Amino acid sequence: MSVIKYDVRRGAYYDSVVLMQLQRGLIGLAGVLDAGVVMATPANRDLLAANNLLPNSINASPDDMLIVVKAENDPSATEAMNQIDVLLARRRSSVSQDFRPRSLNAAAKQLPEANWVLVSVPGRYAANVAREALEFGKHVFLYSDNVSLEDEIALKKTAREKGLLVMGPDCGTAIINGIGLGFANHVRRGPIGLVGASGTGLQAVTTHIHNLGGGISHAIGTGGRDLKSEVGAITAHQALDLLARDSETEIIVLISKPPAPDVATKLLAAAKLTGKPVVIDFLGYPPPARKIGNLHFATSLIEAAAMATQSVGVRNSDSENQPLPILNYYLRGLFSGGTLAYETMLGLQATLPSLYSNVAITENQNLKDPLHSECHTIIDLGDEFFMVGRLHPMIDNDLRIRRMRQEAADPEVGIILLDIVLGEGSHVDPASELAPVIKEVHNQKIEVVAIVIGTDDDPQNLQSQIEKLKEAGAIVFRSVTEAVNYISMRLGQNVKNDFPPVNLEQLKQPFAAINLGLESFYESLTSQGAQAIHVDWRPPAGGNEKLAALLTKMKK
Amino acid sequence: MSVIKYDVRRGAYYDSVVLMQLQRGLIGLAGVLDAGVVMATPANRDLLAANNLLPNSINASPDDMLIVVKAENDPSATEAMNQIDVLLARRRSSVSQDFRPRSLNAAAKQLPEANWVLVSVPGRYAANVAREALEFGKHVFLYSDNVSLEDEIALKKTAREKGLLVMGPDCGTAIINGIGLGFANHVRRGPIGLVGASGTGLQAVTTHIHNLGGGISHAIGTGGRDLKSEVGAITAHQALDLLARDSETEIIVLISKPPAPDVATKLLAAAKLTGKPVVIDFLGYPPPARKIGNLHFATSLIEAAAMATQSVGVRNSDSENQPLPILNYYLRGLFSGGTLAYETMLGLQATLPSLYSNVAITENQNLKDPLHSECHTIIDLGDEFFMVGRLHPMIDNDLRIRRMRQEAADPEVGIILLDIVLGEGSHVDPASELAPVIKEVHNQKIEVVAIVIGTDDDPQNLQSQIEKLKEAGAIVFRSVTEAVNYISMRLGQNVKNDFPPVNLEQLKQPFAAINLGLESFYESLTSQGAQAIHVDWRPPAGGNEKLAALLTKMKK
Repeated sequence: MSVIKYDVRRGAYYDSVVLMQLQRGLIGLAGVLDAGVVMATPANRDLLAANNLLPNSINASPDDMLIVVKAENDPSATEAMNQIDVLLARRRSSVSQDFRPRSLNAAAKQLPEANWVLVSVPGRYAANVAREALEFGKHVFLYSDNVSLEDEIALKKTAREKGLLVMGPDCGTAIINGIGLGFANHVRRGPIGLVGASGTGLQAVTTHIHNLGGGISHAIGTGGRDLKSEVGAITAHQALDLLARDSETEIIVLISKPPAPDVATKLLAAAKLTGKPVVIDFLGYPPPARKIGNLHFATSLIEAAAMATQSVGVRNSDSENQPLPILNYYLRGLFSGGTLAYETMLGLQATLPSLYSNVAITENQNLKDPLHSECHTIIDLGDEFFMVGRLHPMIDNDLRIRRMRQEAADPEVGIILLDIVLGEGSHVDPASELAPVIKEVHNQKIEVVAIVIGTDDDPQNLQSQIEKLKEAGAIVFRSVTEAVNYISMRLGQNVKNDFPPVNLEQLKQPFAAINLGLESFYESLTSQGAQAIHVDWRPPAGGNEKLAALLTKMKK
Repeated sequence: MSVIKYDVRRGAYYDSVVLMQLQRGLIGLAGVLDAGVVMATPANRDLLAANNLLPNSINASPDDMLIVVKAENDPSATEAMNQIDVLLARRRSSVSQDFRPRSLNAAAKQLPEANWVLVSVPGRYAANVAREALEFGKHVFLYSDNVSLEDEIALKKTAREKGLLVMGPDCGTAIINGIGLGFANHVRRGPIGLVGASGTGLQAVTTHIHNLGGGISHAIGTGGRDLKSEVGAITAHQALDLLARDSETEIIVLISKPPAPDVATKLLAAAKLTGKPVVIDFLGYPPPARKIGNLHFATSLIEAAAMATQSVGVRNSDSENQPLPILNYYLRGLFSGGTLAYETMLGLQATLPSLYSNVAITENQNLKDPLHSECHTIIDLGDEFFMVGRLHPMIDNDLRIRRMRQEAADPEVGIILLDIVLGEGSHVDPASELAPVIKEVHNQKIEVVAIVIGTDDDPQNLQSQIEKLKEAGAIVFRSVTEAVNYISMRLGQNVKNDFPPVNLEQLKQPFAAINLGLESFYESLTSQGAQAIHVDWRPPAGGNEKLAALLTKMKK
């Protein structure tokens, strides 16, 4: 019968490489069946239990190292326990660096050209290390997780003020000037620049681009929470701005899990104004269309890579890359078709804030009173609300004509959007009834955009309907997608960056960095030919939190 | 100064054409500035108010007709009020039918070949009329809105039992055997069959297909609520089954506002088994990919049309259209990459029910305990939960190896899915560590699927990594999309239709219908060459609800 023995090392700091190496060392000993070496967090204790490695009674806190050995018999278990200190002592750094500075300060003096600091120390220490790096004027690649949202926001706000980037926390990857940071694939250099919230998403897309024959200028990680409302995509906005200014970047790819809607709208509005094709894959975000102006929406990581690679060398038309002058007025869409109204909402919400409707997609788009528009508004006039004892607006134009006049009387309105659905059952000549009002509205300097849905075989005569609408002054499109494309380019926020730009020249200098935490990241940098220095970082007071608090108090 | 006068006609039924014609008649009178003729619902009263047509004090219920006239002076207003009955009498039916039956029963006897009943009577009467039509064994096109959800469910359940379709309520359009019902465009006949929840979505796509040179077999409307959980897509499932059996339909297009997730999963599972390419545009539903097996996901109505038109004549490979035999076991995905896990969830949730994860997309996918899988489970082992004092699973394979063994011990597991992310920072040879466990698991008749993310330039040697995994028995893909495609075809529900099929031959017979409600729908049918009969429908007891209730009581 097997025997389990354990040891608890109280309140001492061991990095995760030490834990792994000790565990492997123990498993390699004669007579040992299995072993677990972990910080005694609830999750890790559960994991030990799942592997039948949890001793019955155990007194250990999350700050303690827990060492468990399962052996064939008692002597083997005892012998293994005796080997712990030997194995811990045998653990030797593989870092070949001659002199190992003990602090960021010392490292910065040793390698003054280092503009970057890689932080992969345990989460509870990471924010302080990152803060120190920002104070030294360095960009931060923050691999550590278990960093609080509050710390993330504070760090990013500080960084933004200084024109510095904080990539992370929980940022797994980045490629700066050809050098991979953290986890990163070896990819060709080229004209595609990426901004990615998450690690493996960015790795997958850069890898796919390389495999498709394309190349990468820079790939900037932001951490998974950057696109939450609370953080407001600080790093993503900085990165987008940086790649927009970078002459080597021709195409930008933006990857993330679904961002908060308000954050998405602002980020897409900023992307719209970059003047470069931007491929977007917000995983799980309903794409408003394949393409809105210079924004191209992908539905998967591999498709994002394919779209970016295909766009290389394809000169986009000026009209795509040079956004129309932003019209600082409101849109009012008056629809007879519910689904057409809905698809319009879907398209517009991507880049248009303050959008309201009686066919709202999100709750905050709900129009309080369907009879009165607010800001940008899309109304489905065929909604049940309007339909009791009344003919459908596709048969009877009265309601829509009255509403057009109502909207035109609002001095904040700049565009009125209509759908005109032809075919059996519909009004025999809607254009003739609508044209006089369109003319009237058009004369008030309001653009009228009409989406005409119909075929050349429809009873109304498609061509003459279109002609009548155009003669009255309407801009006519034949699908929602085209109309949304036009309006999205015409309206929206004129996003001005209210932060100091990140220095582009610094980004292009030979990469040099200071590394704190995982030694393998240091090794990876040097193997790629980058200049790097590894700090022999230890937590304050050796990880003893009470002592650390005391030390902090004494310093004051 | 203008004068407003009004009249209230209590509790009498007037159809909406009468209301419109009376309003137009009044506006056409000398000295009349504006007029409103509406049922006095709160919405309509608000609309009158918005047009400055609401009298100050007014006593009218939603069942009353409210007639308001705004005239230049008192004599004009008075004269207009005197003309009301004259104008109401002048209203003449444009229906040229010799004999106008007063009931559905009489109409059915007059045109026994009519398999279809079009119902556009006011909402509160519509359910009863539709119920009667089903009793006569007719399919129902239910244009009426303001029909309760309960009535819709009851009608559809009755219809399904009888192998009949209820399209609607609030179904604006359909094309059956070349004849447009309700609002419908004149389109070429061809091999594309459509199922659409909403009216104008279906009109837009059929129109776009025609304009792109394609043609339509049938377009079946379901009403906007069919894909809600409560209704469970009864009509959409029937329609999908019908088009799957229809030899003239080569490609199926499915259009809807975003369905309830459970409904979407079942409907897509059914679509998967049709053996025909199915183009899906669930507006606002995040597409899992461009393509999963025979399912093609569009991001806009015009793109759905383009995808369907382009698919015509393109012979799909057998492997696409012949679904793999469904493996009746569970999937366990053990990921090192959070975004890769998330993209996998996004892809699988489209067709896989009972899916759980620690990176859940919807709340009901939340895995209670990350240490124990349930049904189909996707775990991100790089999640913060697992990461305190532990190396990332991209560096240390220990956690994943233990979990693979744990999953393999579960007799319900059929597939284990892994991601292997190569590159800088990652383990130097993950395949060698994983291969023995893959072999072990594979020998237990469990499929191992591996997604390898890496480039030919990565330090691990991509090709040898892939070879080692394949030799151990893994099926290797190079992107999440390919792996999701494979697993989606391999797993899932074997949806068996548990309802009697709708008679396909009846669908192909020359179209003949009975129309109740809007006369224009009758005219439209006859102008298209269909056989039709218009019922001179009147509400029970002339719309007097108290009297109607009394009559119903007496009949019992």
